[in-house]
Amino acid sequence: MPHQFIDQLQEGALVQQFFLLRQVETRTDKTGKPYLSLVLGDKTGTIVGRVWSKILAKCPGPFAPGDYVGVQGQVDAYRGEIQLTVNYLNTVQALEALGKDLKDFDPELLHLTTSYDRQQLWEELRQLAGNIQPPLGELVLRLLDRYQDLLLVCPAARLYHHPYLGGLLEHTWFVARHTLAALQVYPDLNPALALAGAILHDLGKVKEITSPTAPELTVAGQLLGHIALGWDMVREEARAMDFPDPNLLIQLEHIILAHHGALEFGSPMVPKTREALLVNVLDDLDAKLKMMSQHLESDASDNEFTSYHRVLQRGLYKGGKTAAPENSEK
Amino acid sequence: MPHQFIDQLQEGALVQQFFLLRQVETRTDKTGKPYLSLVLGDKTGTIVGRVWSKILAKCPGPFAPGDYVGVQGQVDAYRGEIQLTVNYLNTVQALEALGKDLKDFDPELLHLTTSYDRQQLWEELRQLAGNIQPPLGELVLRLLDRYQDLLLVCPAARLYHHPYLGGLLEHTWFVARHTLAALQVYPDLNPALALAGAILHDLGKVKEITSPTAPELTVAGQLLGHIALGWDMVREEARAMDFPDPNLLIQLEHIILAHHGALEFGSPMVPKTREALLVNVLDDLDAKLKMMSQHLESDASDNEFTSYHRVLQRGLYKGGKTAAPENSEK
Amino acid sequence: MPHQFIDQLQEGALVQQFFLLRQVETRTDKTGKPYLSLVLGDKTGTIVGRVWSKILAKCPGPFAPGDYVGVQGQVDAYRGEIQLTVNYLNTVQALEALGKDLKDFDPELLHLTTSYDRQQLWEELRQLAGNIQPPLGELVLRLLDRYQDLLLVCPAARLYHHPYLGGLLEHTWFVARHTLAALQVYPDLNPALALAGAILHDLGKVKEITSPTAPELTVAGQLLGHIALGWDMVREEARAMDFPDPNLLIQLEHIILAHHGALEFGSPMVPKTREALLVNVLDDLDAKLKMMSQHLESDASDNEFTSYHRVLQRGLYKGGKTAAPENSEK
Amino acid sequence: MPHQFIDQLQEGALVQQFFLLRQVETRTDKTGKPYLSLVLGDKTGTIVGRVWSKILAKCPGPFAPGDYVGVQGQVDAYRGEIQLTVNYLNTVQALEALGKDLKDFDPELLHLTTSYDRQQLWEELRQLAGNIQPPLGELVLRLLDRYQDLLLVCPAARLYHHPYLGGLLEHTWFVARHTLAALQVYPDLNPALALAGAILHDLGKVKEITSPTAPELTVAGQLLGHIALGWDMVREEARAMDFPDPNLLIQLEHIILAHHGALEFGSPMVPKTREALLVNVLDDLDAKLKMMSQHLESDASDNEFTSYHRVLQRGLYKGGKTAAPENSEK
Amino acid sequence: MPHQFIDQLQEGALVQQFFLLRQVETRTDKTGKPYLSLVLGDKTGTIVGRVWSKILAKCPGPFAPGDYVGVQGQVDAYRGEIQLTVNYLNTVQALEALGKDLKDFDPELLHLTTSYDRQQLWEELRQLAGNIQPPLGELVLRLLDRYQDLLLVCPAARLYHHPYLGGLLEHTWFVARHTLAALQVYPDLNPALALAGAILHDLGKVKEITSPTAPELTVAGQLLGHIALGWDMVREEARAMDFPDPNLLIQLEHIILAHHGALEFGSPMVPKTREALLVNVLDDLDAKLKMMSQHLESDASDNEFTSYHRVLQRGLYKGGKTAAPENSEK
Amino acid sequence: MPHQFIDQLQEGALVQQFFLLRQVETRTDKTGKPYLSLVLGDKTGTIVGRVWSKILAKCPGPFAPGDYVGVQGQVDAYRGEIQLTVNYLNTVQALEALGKDLKDFDPELLHLTTSYDRQQLWEELRQLAGNIQPPLGELVLRLLDRYQDLLLVCPAARLYHHPYLGGLLEHTWFVARHTLAALQVYPDLNPALALAGAILHDLGKVKEITSPTAPELTVAGQLLGHIALGWDMVREEARAMDFPDPNLLIQLEHIILAHHGALEFGSPMVPKTREALLVNVLDDLDAKLKMMSQHLESDASDNEFTSYHRVLQRGLYKGGKTAAPENSEK
Repeated sequence: MPHQFIDQLQEGALVQQFFLLRQVETRTDKTGKPYLSLVLGDKTGTIVGRVWSKILAKCPGPFAPGDYVGVQGQVDAYRGEIQLTVNYLNTVQALEALGKDLKDFDPELLHLTTSYDRQQLWEELRQLAGNIQPPLGELVLRLLDRYQDLLLVCPAARLYHHPYLGGLLEHTWFVARHTLAALQVYPDLNPALALAGAILHDLGKVKEITSPTAPELTVAGQLLGHIALGWDMVREEARAMDFPDPNLLIQLEHIILAHHGALEFGSPMVPKTREALLVNVLDDLDAKLKMMSQHLESDASDNEFTSYHRVLQRGLYKGGKTAAPENSEK
Repeated sequence: MPHQFIDQLQEGALVQQFFLLRQVETRTDKTGKPYLSLVLGDKTGTIVGRVWSKILAKCPGPFAPGDYVGVQGQVDAYRGEIQLTVNYLNTVQALEALGKDLKDFDPELLHLTTSYDRQQLWEELRQLAGNIQPPLGELVLRLLDRYQDLLLVCPAARLYHHPYLGGLLEHTWFVARHTLAALQVYPDLNPALALAGAILHDLGKVKEITSPTAPELTVAGQLLGHIALGWDMVREEARAMDFPDPNLLIQLEHIILAHHGALEFGSPMVPKTREALLVNVLDDLDAKLKMMSQHLESDASDNEFTSYHRVLQRGLYKGGKTAAPENSEK
Repeated sequence: MPHQFIDQLQEGALVQQFFLLRQVETRTDKTGKPYLSLVLGDKTGTIVGRVWSKILAKCPGPFAPGDYVGVQGQVDAYRGEIQLTVNYLNTVQALEALGKDLKDFDPELLHLTTSYDRQQLWEELRQLAGNIQPPLGELVLRLLDRYQDLLLVCPAARLYHHPYLGGLLEHTWFVARHTLAALQVYPDLNPALALAGAILHDLGKVKEITSPTAPELTVAGQLLGHIALGWDMVREEARAMDFPDPNLLIQLEHIILAHHGALEFGSPMVPKTREALLVNVLDDLDAKLKMMSQHLESDASDNEFTSYHRVLQRGLYKGGKTAAPENSEK
Repeated sequence: MPHQFIDQLQEGALVQQFFLLRQVETRTDKTGKPYLSLVLGDKTGTIVGRVWSKILAKCPGPFAPGDYVGVQGQVDAYRGEIQLTVNYLNTVQALEALGKDLKDFDPELLHLTTSYDRQQLWEELRQLAGNIQPPLGELVLRLLDRYQDLLLVCPAARLYHHPYLGGLLEHTWFVARHTLAALQVYPDLNPALALAGAILHDLGKVKEITSPTAPELTVAGQLLGHIALGWDMVREEARAMDFPDPNLLIQLEHIILAHHGALEFGSPMVPKTREALLVNVLDDLDAKLKMMSQHLESDASDNEFTSYHRVLQRGLYKGGKTAAPENSEK
Repeated sequence: MPHQFIDQLQEGALVQQFFLLRQVETRTDKTGKPYLSLVLGDKTGTIVGRVWSKILAKCPGPFAPGDYVGVQGQVDAYRGEIQLTVNYLNTVQALEALGKDLKDFDPELLHLTTSYDRQQLWEELRQLAGNIQPPLGELVLRLLDRYQDLLLVCPAARLYHHPYLGGLLEHTWFVARHTLAALQVYPDLNPALALAGAILHDLGKVKEITSPTAPELTVAGQLLGHIALGWDMVREEARAMDFPDPNLLIQLEHIILAHHGALEFGSPMVPKTREALLVNVLDDLDAKLKMMSQHLESDASDNEFTSYHRVLQRGLYKGGKTAAPENSEK
Repeated sequence: MPHQFIDQLQEGALVQQFFLLRQVETRTDKTGKPYLSLVLGDKTGTIVGRVWSKILAKCPGPFAPGDYVGVQGQVDAYRGEIQLTVNYLNTVQALEALGKDLKDFDPELLHLTTSYDRQQLWEELRQLAGNIQPPLGELVLRLLDRYQDLLLVCPAARLYHHPYLGGLLEHTWFVARHTLAALQVYPDLNPALALAGAILHDLGKVKEITSPTAPELTVAGQLLGHIALGWDMVREEARAMDFPDPNLLIQLEHIILAHHGALEFGSPMVPKTREALLVNVLDDLDAKLKMMSQHLESDASDNEFTSYHRVLQRGLYKGGKTAAPENSEK
């Protein structure tokens, strides 16, 4: 049975397929018996599910956010929202161990992914890094390679921009390419330094964000933050490779620490070099352009402006193609 | 006699040459007689001058900031600063009328000018504008041509960035070229709109700043500001050419009004399109990179950091080439 | 059948009357069929309406916010709120074309209007303008007359203060009269300038706000804003009448641009003349006093303070008449 | 010998006349001997004076800021500024005890005073208070009468607005009259409450500012502030007269506490009634209009704008009468 | 019948017991008849109750927030929440007058109370005050004794920290003890002044908050605030006891006025003595530590961080005891 | 010859003694010849010195800030300030190599030092650390011992608080002892964690500040900052000792990163544990109390308030002992 996408499900539908388990919580019903409240997801959205206590016995679990699960159930409406009443739930891992048929299981259907080819982004980014003058080029390559697995999946943020598989890679690739372009206009900046900073600025996010499929912040992410974590990763790698130019290194470290541009945005230092300023500005620009694009794409109304964007604190103009905007207002 | 540059003048020197009159004020000496207090400039700096009352009779004037003047005098020290005691002062215009020899008069020596070839910048900018898709391209060319004389001389700001002849042209050229480069990375933006906005964003400055040689703000500049003035210039030109696409025009107008990026920086609107955001960010970036470059160049000390920059609110790292910055601190 | 006011409607009531259509949207029911979701209004409030798909066939429309509509239907309760299930819907315009009886149609019943006689406000405002010394008086009269139709209906704001038919006129009239009164206390200000500024300060709102009966912001309102638009209207009119005193005109233009008082409130300039400060302060005062009055009037509780006002960021004291406020707190 | 005004004194002049002693400090000269450093004032300005140690013996003092003093001395120049080398110094009080001739002593010459007739302001203010409905009218009159002596001399502020004898009275009179005028426009406010608040809002300043002739802040002024002090004065007087309407009283107290309009300006409460808002706004407006007027009057330059005003954070337009401001900018 | 705690009530339960009436409002049902909407509370939470119109006749009231009431009724579910349909309602006071059996009435069950023994806190605080050097010690004791009844019950705040019976006493006791401890580290501060300030800093809250059992802000609390009220209480008591050292007194008054530490937090003065700074900082610290403790205790989830705290503007780390936080993030 | 303290030097005095060289710069005199401009210091202050070019030949140097130098010269007055005209200058190191008599050289006379016995502070701090429960206690001791030499001399800040030898040690000792005292009041906090955080919070300052005798910021201090540097030092030491409890360690790391309390003060994280809040608050309190004490001590005037403190943004009350502060204001 082909996967039915969540944004197409209607009341009464029967479901037998795979989902990504995004949240799971044990609750108590009015008679005091335990049941599971789930949030199930695929690449088109999420749906709430319930595993009532009588079913629970045959679904021993354990279940954790990020698990791929097989589900049988039925779509009901509850207070105006559809939800899934589950008759069977198990993890893909357990189903496999039980010898079940998993041929319809396709993780690509189950979570949002960058629209770019991640492998290609990866190779282009690595090539870009390879062109950076040593010793910075070597440092960047070592770090890319060490964290390749995480970089291929990590989102750029949990919620705001590029919040999907490969989002961090896509964001890094845009900032790096824009830095390369800007260096043509500002040739007196140190290109190796600026490019290394552009590629590494958000590296700490791979330690800040948990499982990329159901992203939350790690303890280290919440207590230390990706800026400090990323700085530490660069510093450690540089020690490991016995980086030969401490003066150059400290300028790269500064770019990482200063890349949010201002103390109130979480950087313990403001940019004190032109390269640090450039990376700070192009990082921020890419995040904001992406938030704008995402918001424009997700707006389905007929209005000429989108709804209010909570982070950007404005509505966006959708660029209507009507002939005479100002005349029409009179 | 060749021009003696102000930053080379020493106590006791005799001077007979041309200056740019930057400020002039009539004051009263201790005996109650009037004298002139001047600020004279050339491309290397400024020096205070005094025309005492007994001299004043033979220097009838009138004098105004921005005048080129011929000066005879002598360099004295007063409270530790050198100044010029003037024996004769007249405007170049008056000297010419008197038939004096002006062969040593060379305005290029007397004020700071962009280090780029202004004519070449102009042609490149015009060419860039010429490639913009109509009708925006036509609008941009009309405005460039209408204000060509002012654009070739106007500084980008009185004090902070590009404060010299041709500074506005240089700044515009950088922002435009960076916009062009960024459009390669973000091809889904409207290139004609972004480029037109980049070229026209600061056009109002030609009405905000008085005489480019001794720049002050005009009355319109102080009561209305270059953002509103520039918007009005675009709007009027569009009316004059009967601009055919009001929807496109209003987006260009929005870029002008929103190019300071936030209300508290003087834009009555925040950027609500991606093109407006791009121009806002690249404008700000160019101004800041230039302020940084200027500050780094003007710093003559041996320290590893510049002095504090009042607008950027930080000192800048000068990128010392010593081997071991962090070891040395222990 | 006389109009039943919305705030009096109860479950089960049958309705056959006219409304103002404030919002209209096509949605899909659970079986996938289209239906219309409406917001209908009269001067006492709004009610949600549904035109289910089977009804839709005989109600072809088109419908747009701001339309006056004739409605037949029945009041139901849905999740604790009453709503209108519509059996027939058509625009007054279409009904008229169909030769229907419209004798009960009275637009005055259908939207909130200033409690003042708009015609009288208009005449008083015009008279006040007529007393302004030329050439400013002439400029003001020309602008009032040019935009008379819009001024008679436009609200002062969509939501916050004077959000009703004629609200802008009422607000302008209050600010102008207060300015006149203040000039008695501060006779050294330029009265013509201050009064012209007071009358024209919000004129741009007639281009910022769409149809006054279902007010939204225009594209120009959202991309340019009423401050810039109003400035442009004054500037254009002055050009048209060949305004003879540019120095006076620029001070009037400054009042328009500066009337929000601070950059962070959207004025690209702070007030740099006493007249501009006066208009800025009295405008703000009238808006806030009106918001306070509206909030006090709309509060139906027995408490001594109103609920929190989101814009004013405070609750208001209702001035209880109990004998001993402080004793009672012990 | 007629009084020589300080702004007319020139190097070499001999002086034998009276001054207001504004500051006095004992210092040590380079040989270790004590001398007095003075600031002497009259209504046209201030001059620094020195009483060297050899003179000091015959000028026993004691001297305190605010004393009227008789001075003999000579005007010298020191580092480009004139100063007074004093040969004899004594207080008017001591001179009188010594039987000296004081016929040339005229305090009116010695300090800046409001340009209005203080006695007349006082009577008009008292009359205005007399028209306030009881019991508020009675409370206001009692407070005016109790503090009459201080109100007739106290400045409205040490430095910023109305910093002269009678300044507080003048400011209060303006705010009260503007309140009266505004009540014609907003007749639904409580007039007695608004007027009482307008008259009493700054009463605490008579306890915040020391000697009006050489104003400094009192200890209470610096540790408690005029807002709290004024509130306490009203509260005490109300207790003393057994004010019959506690509900009305607390609203008046609120006006005093809230009259700075926002917490960050030192009010512990924001205005929560319309009367409190009105007094807050008209107080602030009067202070700002006065600062503008003072700044415009004190500006002696030929520029079209004043110098930057540190409190208002702007330069002011002087309203030049030239024919064509905007043309001239091109 | 033993008290059934609100957090244990389930649909269908019959209830006959006492509650604290926290809110009460008369509303109109759909047929236009009046009914009462209640919020009933005990120490474990609150529940909504309805007294429908047919019942109302036998429950004449009057009822006010803060009343203890006897209730008979039944627990129903309405839109997913349980609520109480009331069959009988009367105040404890009226029941007593009717001679009803109140033996099950125990106020301690009905509201949240500090976990400390209030009588003991009170005695320790009084003892601490007794050790303060006169005359400050005497002043503090007089105030404690005068307001003892209120201090034993008043919460420290309505919502944010220590929002329960005796909360103000507990908070005061912590701040006072911490001040005592800090004085060991900073022995050069004036201990009597610091301790008196610590004990009295929030005294005004007993006039700011109404009935401690259902706390709301008084009119004086909202128009004047606890800072001004507390200052006035100290000032009056000092007058009453003819406090002998005005210099010391004004420093104590300053501590009260300045204890919020900054204008924007409602203090009309910033701390200008070290004792005022100390009290300001330790007050704020205790409130924040308590908010943190309350938030940590109230968080029932399995997550390593609490939910977001609206006042502290952060989530809190719950200090998980897992072995390896940072490893687990990879 | 005994050391003459700088604050006692008078014009004409001959000097032959040792100083601390705080700044040194090569300048050019009016004839174009080089001379040295010095700032020389001892524990009582600083004096400017000049080594004119003819003297320079016999004073080959090199000289650097932080050097102890022997000086012969004479005190002159220049523009009202005394300065030292130097006849001979050499470093103590070079003098020693030349076999000169250094018996009068006593570094203790030459720079400001904490008034506490540094050795005793050190031992008390170490003892306090020794009582911390392992493994945190061990980590703290390792770090104290590793950086003992720097901790014994480093100031707590260059300018604002504890800007003298041993200042960091003194500050740390106060914060640690206050933390210990606070833990008695708040026993439910983790004492080992709070104390370890208190002792280590500013450790990074030993890498942020250069030579303690003439403190400047290091390159690492300006590009990375003491917060990040201190965090890295703790992290590295923990790795070195194979710290067994990563969960505990990350909480300690968080205290270091969060100890400035807010992003805008340079912490990349806000405190998310109670221990982190406690260290943040007690650190800030100690710095502010010290700034207050320093400012009060340095104020020599007779006024009741100090001059304005630029960092604290207020003047401080000096706690005058006059009898009647408020009476005197009337």
